[in-house]
Amino acid sequence: MLLNQDENTEKSVPGPGAANAQWGGRFAAGPSAIMQEINVSIGFDKALWRQDIRGSRAHAAMLRTVGILTEADHEAIASGLDAIEAEIEAGRFAFEPALEDIHMNIEARLSERIGEAGKRLHTARSRNDQVATDFRLWVRDAIDGIDAQAAALMRSLASRALQHASDVMPGFTHLQTAQPVTFGHHLLAYVEMLHRDRGRLADARRRLNECPLGSAALAGTSFPIDRRMTASALGFDRPTRNSLDAVSDRDFALEYLSALSILAMHLSRLAEEIITWCSAPFGFVRLSDAFTTGSSIMPQKRNPDAAELTRAKTGRVTGALVGLLTVMKGLPLAYAKDMQEDKEPVFAATDAAALCLAATDGMVRDLEARTDRMRALAGSGFSTATDLADWLVRVLKLPFRDAHHVTGRLVGRAEARGVALSDLSLEEMQAEHPGITAEIFDVLTVENSVASRTSEGGTAPANVSAEARRWLSELAEAEMRP
Amino acid sequence: MLLNQDENTEKSVPGPGAANAQWGGRFAAGPSAIMQEINVSIGFDKALWRQDIRGSRAHAAMLRTVGILTEADHEAIASGLDAIEAEIEAGRFAFEPALEDIHMNIEARLSERIGEAGKRLHTARSRNDQVATDFRLWVRDAIDGIDAQAAALMRSLASRALQHASDVMPGFTHLQTAQPVTFGHHLLAYVEMLHRDRGRLADARRRLNECPLGSAALAGTSFPIDRRMTASALGFDRPTRNSLDAVSDRDFALEYLSALSILAMHLSRLAEEIITWCSAPFGFVRLSDAFTTGSSIMPQKRNPDAAELTRAKTGRVTGALVGLLTVMKGLPLAYAKDMQEDKEPVFAATDAAALCLAATDGMVRDLEARTDRMRALAGSGFSTATDLADWLVRVLKLPFRDAHHVTGRLVGRAEARGVALSDLSLEEMQAEHPGITAEIFDVLTVENSVASRTSEGGTAPANVSAEARRWLSELAEAEMRP
Amino acid sequence: MLLNQDENTEKSVPGPGAANAQWGGRFAAGPSAIMQEINVSIGFDKALWRQDIRGSRAHAAMLRTVGILTEADHEAIASGLDAIEAEIEAGRFAFEPALEDIHMNIEARLSERIGEAGKRLHTARSRNDQVATDFRLWVRDAIDGIDAQAAALMRSLASRALQHASDVMPGFTHLQTAQPVTFGHHLLAYVEMLHRDRGRLADARRRLNECPLGSAALAGTSFPIDRRMTASALGFDRPTRNSLDAVSDRDFALEYLSALSILAMHLSRLAEEIITWCSAPFGFVRLSDAFTTGSSIMPQKRNPDAAELTRAKTGRVTGALVGLLTVMKGLPLAYAKDMQEDKEPVFAATDAAALCLAATDGMVRDLEARTDRMRALAGSGFSTATDLADWLVRVLKLPFRDAHHVTGRLVGRAEARGVALSDLSLEEMQAEHPGITAEIFDVLTVENSVASRTSEGGTAPANVSAEARRWLSELAEAEMRP
Amino acid sequence: MLLNQDENTEKSVPGPGAANAQWGGRFAAGPSAIMQEINVSIGFDKALWRQDIRGSRAHAAMLRTVGILTEADHEAIASGLDAIEAEIEAGRFAFEPALEDIHMNIEARLSERIGEAGKRLHTARSRNDQVATDFRLWVRDAIDGIDAQAAALMRSLASRALQHASDVMPGFTHLQTAQPVTFGHHLLAYVEMLHRDRGRLADARRRLNECPLGSAALAGTSFPIDRRMTASALGFDRPTRNSLDAVSDRDFALEYLSALSILAMHLSRLAEEIITWCSAPFGFVRLSDAFTTGSSIMPQKRNPDAAELTRAKTGRVTGALVGLLTVMKGLPLAYAKDMQEDKEPVFAATDAAALCLAATDGMVRDLEARTDRMRALAGSGFSTATDLADWLVRVLKLPFRDAHHVTGRLVGRAEARGVALSDLSLEEMQAEHPGITAEIFDVLTVENSVASRTSEGGTAPANVSAEARRWLSELAEAEMRP
Repeated sequence: MLLNQDENTEKSVPGPGAANAQWGGRFAAGPSAIMQEINVSIGFDKALWRQDIRGSRAHAAMLRTVGILTEADHEAIASGLDAIEAEIEAGRFAFEPALEDIHMNIEARLSERIGEAGKRLHTARSRNDQVATDFRLWVRDAIDGIDAQAAALMRSLASRALQHASDVMPGFTHLQTAQPVTFGHHLLAYVEMLHRDRGRLADARRRLNECPLGSAALAGTSFPIDRRMTASALGFDRPTRNSLDAVSDRDFALEYLSALSILAMHLSRLAEEIITWCSAPFGFVRLSDAFTTGSSIMPQKRNPDAAELTRAKTGRVTGALVGLLTVMKGLPLAYAKDMQEDKEPVFAATDAAALCLAATDGMVRDLEARTDRMRALAGSGFSTATDLADWLVRVLKLPFRDAHHVTGRLVGRAEARGVALSDLSLEEMQAEHPGITAEIFDVLTVENSVASRTSEGGTAPANVSAEARRWLSELAEAEMRP
Repeated sequence: MLLNQDENTEKSVPGPGAANAQWGGRFAAGPSAIMQEINVSIGFDKALWRQDIRGSRAHAAMLRTVGILTEADHEAIASGLDAIEAEIEAGRFAFEPALEDIHMNIEARLSERIGEAGKRLHTARSRNDQVATDFRLWVRDAIDGIDAQAAALMRSLASRALQHASDVMPGFTHLQTAQPVTFGHHLLAYVEMLHRDRGRLADARRRLNECPLGSAALAGTSFPIDRRMTASALGFDRPTRNSLDAVSDRDFALEYLSALSILAMHLSRLAEEIITWCSAPFGFVRLSDAFTTGSSIMPQKRNPDAAELTRAKTGRVTGALVGLLTVMKGLPLAYAKDMQEDKEPVFAATDAAALCLAATDGMVRDLEARTDRMRALAGSGFSTATDLADWLVRVLKLPFRDAHHVTGRLVGRAEARGVALSDLSLEEMQAEHPGITAEIFDVLTVENSVASRTSEGGTAPANVSAEARRWLSELAEAEMRP
Repeated sequence: MLLNQDENTEKSVPGPGAANAQWGGRFAAGPSAIMQEINVSIGFDKALWRQDIRGSRAHAAMLRTVGILTEADHEAIASGLDAIEAEIEAGRFAFEPALEDIHMNIEARLSERIGEAGKRLHTARSRNDQVATDFRLWVRDAIDGIDAQAAALMRSLASRALQHASDVMPGFTHLQTAQPVTFGHHLLAYVEMLHRDRGRLADARRRLNECPLGSAALAGTSFPIDRRMTASALGFDRPTRNSLDAVSDRDFALEYLSALSILAMHLSRLAEEIITWCSAPFGFVRLSDAFTTGSSIMPQKRNPDAAELTRAKTGRVTGALVGLLTVMKGLPLAYAKDMQEDKEPVFAATDAAALCLAATDGMVRDLEARTDRMRALAGSGFSTATDLADWLVRVLKLPFRDAHHVTGRLVGRAEARGVALSDLSLEEMQAEHPGITAEIFDVLTVENSVASRTSEGGTAPANVSAEARRWLSELAEAEMRP
Repeated sequence: MLLNQDENTEKSVPGPGAANAQWGGRFAAGPSAIMQEINVSIGFDKALWRQDIRGSRAHAAMLRTVGILTEADHEAIASGLDAIEAEIEAGRFAFEPALEDIHMNIEARLSERIGEAGKRLHTARSRNDQVATDFRLWVRDAIDGIDAQAAALMRSLASRALQHASDVMPGFTHLQTAQPVTFGHHLLAYVEMLHRDRGRLADARRRLNECPLGSAALAGTSFPIDRRMTASALGFDRPTRNSLDAVSDRDFALEYLSALSILAMHLSRLAEEIITWCSAPFGFVRLSDAFTTGSSIMPQKRNPDAAELTRAKTGRVTGALVGLLTVMKGLPLAYAKDMQEDKEPVFAATDAAALCLAATDGMVRDLEARTDRMRALAGSGFSTATDLADWLVRVLKLPFRDAHHVTGRLVGRAEARGVALSDLSLEEMQAEHPGITAEIFDVLTVENSVASRTSEGGTAPANVSAEARRWLSELAEAEMRP
């Protein structure tokens, strides 16, 4: 039997396998090779090393305070952990598969270095609460990292929005020209999305910020531990309140993956837009060499690889979420080995999201907006027909539905003649409705159209500038705060 | 061309189809049948009727206040909407597929009833911001409903936990007997999960609580509307801040589905446990006829159908989340017809979650705990070995790892003799470690084991009672609040 | 206790619910309302009525043949089933929730009509094998329907491909102009995808085509039934081989949903292309009014709603697959109520796929290719640079990598001067490589470029015509076959 | 600009990052670090090295045959590829991130070794068709590996089934005792599932077995290549038929992942059963130390980690499928960088499935069936009530529904008295139906119950032995075949 906790029996390592048995071959060595593959998690959970050491430091200090450890033992442990931290930082630590996981690797090394005291560290804790604590700390750090990247991207978007607050582009619905908007307004839509993403991450962080340490294997412990002390030392708001739940819970990972899935979806939308905007027929945007690839044969070609990868990575993140929801479905309490499948999806999704955020931030800062091209298309397709209808309602007091009918007929006339609405004569206009005056030609320009959308949240350049400034100032202030 | 907004052209309804062409047959009538199927959403979006009327009321009142509607028009609209509400409540409203969706059905009926004034209602709004508003209101109502059900389930669990605060059952890890816990403690683990679920729902509600109305089609409007007024009238905290985002955003639905997915997963875990507990070999729990089905032939059989359905429904909820994430992936701004695929998954997931919560609440209240059976199994499998080891550490000051080795050897002895740990003689004990005293026999009982786990969050009956009482009082207080 | 099989006890129907309790309210009536909601499947499984009657006919005929039923009983059952079929066809059958499901609804009606003989029909079968049989028959019918629609779409695509075999369009990689292809070639790519889809459906059909009937509840039966006879009567290839598996297996539904998910993904790709092609900047394609919607105000607007819905529906299908995989995860044998969650996702995915196929077929037949616009863009972006490089390799025997360098420098020259490659003079060409001759100007036209791609599967118009004809002929032949 | 194809410009490698910026930090070096992360795939696609070399060998041989390469060049290329293969096998090949992917790593090394001839290898191909070919070859090899493992597991299951063909266990529905079955019959249910899994894999293999090589970038090529020759050399059945489809298609990966998802779900069901069977209350099965882990403190504990991991890994596989479906949704033709996200999910899912198959095979061979315990539970719960009812139908000719009522009343009597059905006296029996004779007591034993289920596919031991033998012989024969 493999002993989980203290016996590091030698395990056979699978051979290289027969040439045409890429898999399976490695299991030829039999059960021990299979169990090694199943049991050993050091290959991925070594990513938790910082968190594991932090957790052990806090645990040891608490054990000392409540009198379970002597001061001498505590000092030995504390300096032993410092030394191990330095070893790992320096790349001099030998992670041993035979020791299965990061917890045993560090604890074994500690005992190797400091002897008996090391064997006392695991008092009043278990791997179940230890891994739950480590992984929460890791996810909390990940949230902080992703949040900082999202904030940076918001700043970049708001900066570009300010720059392009008045630059008109076609606003699409159904990818059909609908009404003119400004490019700045369009970019600020993504600032809103990222703001919500950060809100979700902050809520997830707050909710995860309870410390499982001290729940022991599943039932709590009879040692007189002080869970508030360890919780506080590790930056948690409080200890968890039910030991069975604490070791069985992976909500924090699922909630984080949910937030990342929505975030990745947002980035996929902007990526899709950048790809379309970079296409020859659109030509709204030009990315520099820094964010495109070309080919030796067509040096002018600019493939928006960064945007395509960003669009694609949403699959990785959603897949991770689905995977972990599937793992947790129907699991009885308390800890089950199934839960070891929690880490790799979270690591992979974090990597994907971090890369997408970095790439998107880079592209947003890098892209050259071809405002002439945007402007040219903004005015096509009778894009100010709504302005005309609104004028009929506002000035002539036509009921909305009637105003639409009059406008529809005018568009029909213009289309039939192959001209813009503004190319119709006042007489033609009046033929559809006698009340129309020359004032109408003012409302038909794209500049006046966007300028008129002054309702809260509307695309009027003044609104857009103000919003962009508000965001920049809010983001700057937030950065000031501790 | 089908006109989205005001022309209700006759549409051919597909015939019954050839016998062996269940699908496709209904499209034999050609393009019009296909477009009808694609375009017409009244079949499902009529679920939004209450929200649509609320939204129109608020919009009309605001239009009156800012002077866009006359008082007479406003009064006509307000009483027209009241009448329509009464018609729908009474089941006398004829939903017309030819009018495509709930918005046009209600608006058309309004114009039919009140004439010209009805045609003025749609001033300064568009179906894009209207449906976004209606659907937010619906999801907000759904959150409130689910939250209330979750609270009720928490109360039921906490009540049962209080009742069984001292009843010992085996605590499992890997479904193997690990340490004794109390049944009350086990039930409170689910209270913690539901508490987090409610936290997620509350956060989602707070985040969605911004009003899209006034964003118009995508760019805002030139009418002098007062978005704060409509937002406030509809119970929103504020208007949304970017019109493009407001009509393109379905985060609120995705975040709600994420929260439901985690909730449904929790319920699937309890359902799995109930099913296992109801099995003959376990026999921990007995459900009454109210939550089981039998068969005519084996009237004693109690199939835990309610628990099985609850376990299964997590698939429906996860499927809805994946579906909507897939829909939104890579969508360019602003509104696209793709987004019409948002409602049915949300409706289906809400139904599933509501049913699971009701069924779980019913089972928790209904179940008879067979505490004798739990107690009998709680003491098997050397379940108090950890207590013995902890005693060696606490009293004899053995290092944790050494204490485990001594305990392991004692368990080995007991297993070899086929007896319990408490059946070993003091001499046998002392043969493994001379310091062991008769006090050890006290720590080996399951009652003393659970009683000793007094660490915060531990399974000691005193802890469990206190926690159950705390929850009941907290839930009662919450209910008091408005 | 609810009796599954023979007692149709009255069940309380939930009241309308309090106004603001959309859910939960309906469960106020208590446990019976909840169990009704869980247990009663007639709301959706009535879709299986044809299959249920077919199965009962086959079962009764077999029971007669092996002597379990008398001829008189068999005749009564057979004519009773005929009468019920007629009632349902005519819409005169009252489906009773109190009878839970389609099986009991039909059996109860049968006993009502023919008395005692009706009670003998269920001999040697169980609802477990009955529903497995019905649902397989339904999925088999669904496969046939979807397959026929896919074949029709292939024909439409191949017809349009033949029509546009020589019409040049830009071939994109990364949505950047890469090399010219023909529009016909592009359409035939989707024929290949659909051909694979049909292959998957055919394989799924073949694999599901085993008859579970006779597996009884889970263990088989002691009656001397002839399973080959029922299998054959229902068009199955053979009986299933293990009774436990037969009632626990939903692979056929999962495999079908997998095939539909890939199919839906294919359609989402074509839909995305159609949406992009219909945008003003691309303008490659024009859809008629039959497949677009407009607005009252912009009558010229053509929103490609049919394509957008098709793109979105892939979410519904993937969601259904994920949902059912989640349901089945970790289910012990044999039948569990969880499996009742199999039908609605399959029905919903089938509806979605059928609608998408119909809409796509309609659009493919309807669309007007604006070949002038395609042609104009096909020649931009140095799209024949590869032809130039290939000429250097083929004629001048330059190594491939060197040829690319020469070409790259020539493109650089042309780009710097703002001209096409063919606008460079021979001298300029020779400045980069002295071996270049005037022949090079022939390879730089888009017509010659596509004409030269004569490798098997290449875009040369002759290839494309031949392939389109081959497909049309193959599809026509297939239709001839019985 | 990064040049995809021939320029291996130096790329800045990101620094170690600030201590508390786990992610993002590595992108501090700016755009080049981001693009490196996006563009460079050698970290994972080096797994394709064997396939890449095989593809290049076939391509070079074909180029020689059609006269594009000289014999000398071909020989240089062939021996160069041999040498590179040897280098990689020996672990002496330096994979260079600067060369981005496996294709460029090998081609660059080839040119380094053999000079000019190396630069001619890429004639008439592109990375787009090259990677499509390599990845198909890899998936084909993976299918072969998984198929062999599934066959091995079928053999193990059939062997154990033969051994336990007559050992009675309770057959469950809803995890409630329903009717007795044999343990062998139960195991053979999984053989059926795996047989279908292998059928799906075989169909996927057949469908993917078309060679994309020669499709070039997207349009085919003007070189006079012989695609049938390369297809045949690589073991493909034929070349693909449309070049645009060939480079844009990832169906083969999706279909493979679908088949793996269903396979993994099957294994999760058996894993769930093993975990339940290993629990103390069930005690049906005992796993040896080889497939369990214990703890230092409870050496008798046997945690079924191998089964739990197998149950959990289904999440990984489903997640991979969802991820790739999401990636492909809505992608326009032809190649897009998004498709680079195809490999890692396929690799991860293959690893997971291979490990689960190995672990399950190990457990099936290892497990000790505690047949006494199974037998004891098989007779409880009136599990032969159905046999009694069937006897009433068969012998007394009662209608099925009436027989069920009589049986139900007898079960009710026995339950009320707390005895088994067979403990009722004949008089008690006759009180419910006077026709009952002493023969009834024979049908009430579990041995007679299972023995009577002789219908095809039923659980009668003779059936089970025959089926197990048939499977063993079929599997043995299959192994004989080439």
